[in-house]
Amino acid sequence: MSRAYNFSAGPAALPEPVLEQARDELLEWKGERASVMEVSHRGKAFVAMAEESEADLRTLLAVPDDYAVLFLQGGATQQFAQIPLNIATPGQAADYLVTGAWGQKAVSEAKPYVNARIAASTEEGRFTDVPDADSWSVDPAAAYLHYTPNETIHGVEFHALPDSGDVPLVGDFSSTILSRPVDVSKFGIIYAGAQKNIGPSGLVLMVIRRELMERSGQARAKILNFAAQAKEGSMLNTPPTLSWYLAGLVFKWLREQGGLEAMAKRNQAKADLLYAAIDNSGGFYRNPVAPRARSWMNVPFTLKDAALDSAFLKESEAAGLLALKGHRAVGGMRASIYNAMPIEGVKALVDFMADFARRNG
Amino acid sequence: MSRAYNFSAGPAALPEPVLEQARDELLEWKGERASVMEVSHRGKAFVAMAEESEADLRTLLAVPDDYAVLFLQGGATQQFAQIPLNIATPGQAADYLVTGAWGQKAVSEAKPYVNARIAASTEEGRFTDVPDADSWSVDPAAAYLHYTPNETIHGVEFHALPDSGDVPLVGDFSSTILSRPVDVSKFGIIYAGAQKNIGPSGLVLMVIRRELMERSGQARAKILNFAAQAKEGSMLNTPPTLSWYLAGLVFKWLREQGGLEAMAKRNQAKADLLYAAIDNSGGFYRNPVAPRARSWMNVPFTLKDAALDSAFLKESEAAGLLALKGHRAVGGMRASIYNAMPIEGVKALVDFMADFARRNG
Repeated sequence: MSRAYNFSAGPAALPEPVLEQARDELLEWKGERASVMEVSHRGKAFVAMAEESEADLRTLLAVPDDYAVLFLQGGATQQFAQIPLNIATPGQAADYLVTGAWGQKAVSEAKPYVNARIAASTEEGRFTDVPDADSWSVDPAAAYLHYTPNETIHGVEFHALPDSGDVPLVGDFSSTILSRPVDVSKFGIIYAGAQKNIGPSGLVLMVIRRELMERSGQARAKILNFAAQAKEGSMLNTPPTLSWYLAGLVFKWLREQGGLEAMAKRNQAKADLLYAAIDNSGGFYRNPVAPRARSWMNVPFTLKDAALDSAFLKESEAAGLLALKGHRAVGGMRASIYNAMPIEGVKALVDFMADFARRNG
Repeated sequence: MSRAYNFSAGPAALPEPVLEQARDELLEWKGERASVMEVSHRGKAFVAMAEESEADLRTLLAVPDDYAVLFLQGGATQQFAQIPLNIATPGQAADYLVTGAWGQKAVSEAKPYVNARIAASTEEGRFTDVPDADSWSVDPAAAYLHYTPNETIHGVEFHALPDSGDVPLVGDFSSTILSRPVDVSKFGIIYAGAQKNIGPSGLVLMVIRRELMERSGQARAKILNFAAQAKEGSMLNTPPTLSWYLAGLVFKWLREQGGLEAMAKRNQAKADLLYAAIDNSGGFYRNPVAPRARSWMNVPFTLKDAALDSAFLKESEAAGLLALKGHRAVGGMRASIYNAMPIEGVKALVDFMADFARRNG
C-alpha cells in the first residue's frame, strides 16, 4: 500500500474507507450476486440505496422539504446551460457575480439562452477578492443571480452568503459543497459537480427550490427538464449508478465524521495551517488572495522564484505530496484540501514547504 | 464468491475479469499512488489511458480516420436531443425508423428541435418486426435518418444496414454496440449508452463522421457542441473518468476475446440456443418477434400462462439466473445476453426453462 497525499483539484482524493468498501463489494453488492454497477437502477436494492443517499444528503445539508434533490449528469458545465433553459425565458436578464474562471465559463455557456449580465466582476483585480455588495448592479427582474461560492482555480471563496433580494440565488458549489453547513433556504439552486467533495466525476448534485421548477423556461427536450427529472426521482433515464453509489458512501462517511459542522472545523484548521505557512515564509511563498476571500478548499501559491517550481514539484511528489502544480491560468502551485484530505496531509505539506524554503531560500 | 448469471437489460453484467482488475487496482492505479477516480483527467496517466481506450475502440470497430470518437455524458436519451441540436437546423425535417420504445423516445426528445418525421414505424404490428425498406418514406432533404439497430425492450434487431441514400444514417446502438462488426463508413453517427455492452452507466460513446460536425446546427452552449468536444478530446469539462477507465478495460477484454468477429459468433450461438429453446417448447414459451428481426441481445418471451410468471421469476432467481423479469411494456420475461454473458449462462437458462416447463406444462 503506497497511497500518497493527493492535492488534486479534481477529480480529487476520496476518503480511503469509502474506496475500501467499494473495493470489497465491487463484485458482489449487498447480496445481489452482482456488482452495484451491474444491477438495474429500477431494482429494489438500487432504489433503496438511492433513497438512502438522498436522505443522508438532506440530513447533512439540512435541506428543507420544499427543495428537491436531483442527481444529474454532464458536469457543472452542462448546468451552466441547463439552468437558464429551465428557469429563464429566452433572452431574459440573468445576473452573474464573476470571481474567477468558473464564473466566466458560467456566463459564456448561458449566453445562447439569456441576456447574461455581469452584476459584478473582480477580473480587474485578477480575481483575488470577492466584490463588495454595494458594487453589484443586480437587475430586480433578473431570472436569477448566479455566483461561484468557491473558485477552484483562483482560490477565492465567499465566506458570507450574497444577498440577492427577491431574485433567486443560484450557486455553483462544485468545489465547496459539503465542506461546511450552508443555509439552503437562502438559495434557489445549489449545484455541484461531484468530483471534488462528493464522489467520482460524471455526477452532478442539485438542490432546487420546487417552485422554481414551475417556471416554463425555454423549449427543451424532456431529459433537460428539471421538473421531469424530479418527478422521476432522477431516473428519467439510466442515471450514473456507480457514481451515485460512491456518492452515497461519501455521505455516510461524512455523517460518521460528525456532519458538516465537524467538517467545517477541520477544513478551517487545515486552511489556517496552510495559509499561516505561506504568510510566515518570509516571502518565499505567496498567496495573492485577500484574506477575507481565501478559499478553504483550494490554496494557490507561488514561489518567490518561478525557476524553483520544477524542483518543488519533483521533490514534493517524491515526498508523497501529489498534484501540487497550479492551474496554468494562475501558475505556481495549488493545494486542494477538500474533505478527504486529512490534517496530517496538510501538516506533511507545510513541513515539506518549510524544508524546501530553508534549502532554497 | 456467489456471483450469478445476470440477465439484466441494463445496467448489465460486465466481464468478470474487468471487475476483478478494477477491484484489484481500485485504491492504487498504475503507480499513481491514488485511485483512477482520484487523478486529474489532464494528467499523463489518465490521458494515456484515454488515448489507448480510443485506439482500442477504433481497432475493434475499424473506425475510419474521417470519424471522431467522443466520450460523452447524459445517456443515449440526451443524445436524442443533442444530435438534432448539432446536425439539423431549427425545424428541419429529420426522419425516424421506429421499431420500438427507444425509437419513439428518440422522436419525442427531438421534437423541440426538428420536424421529426416517422419515415416508417412498426407500431401497428406491436413492434415485432423491422419495416421493409420499400415502405419507408424518407425525405431526401432530411437532416438525417435515425434508427435503433436493436430495441432493448421489444427485442427487435435490424440484421442488415438500412440504406439511407445521401441522408446521413444515425444509429442508437446502445444495446448492440460491439456485439458484432459494423461497417462504420455507412454511418453519419453511431452512438450508445455504455451500460449494456461497454461499461457502467453515465458514459455515452459516439462515433461521428467529422464533416457532420461542420454543420452549424442550432444555438446551443459549447458543452452541447460535438465539434467543441472533439477538439478537446472529449475533455471540454471533466469527463466521467471512472466509467471511461472501465470502458477501456472492456475494450481490452474484447480484443483478448478475439474482437468483434469472435463476439458475433458467440452472440449468435447464444441467441440461437435461446430462441431454439423457446420455439421448441411446444408453445410453453413464446417470442413474438419475426425471425428475421429477432435480437441477439435482448430476448423477450412470455409463458403460456401469465399466472406462472411469478413462480418462474422466483425459481429462476433461486437457481442463480437474475433479472429475467420483462419490461412492463411487453410483460413476461426478458433475457438480455450481452457480450459479458457466457454461453454457460444461456445453457443454464435453457436448462432451467426446460425443467420449469416440464414441471408446469
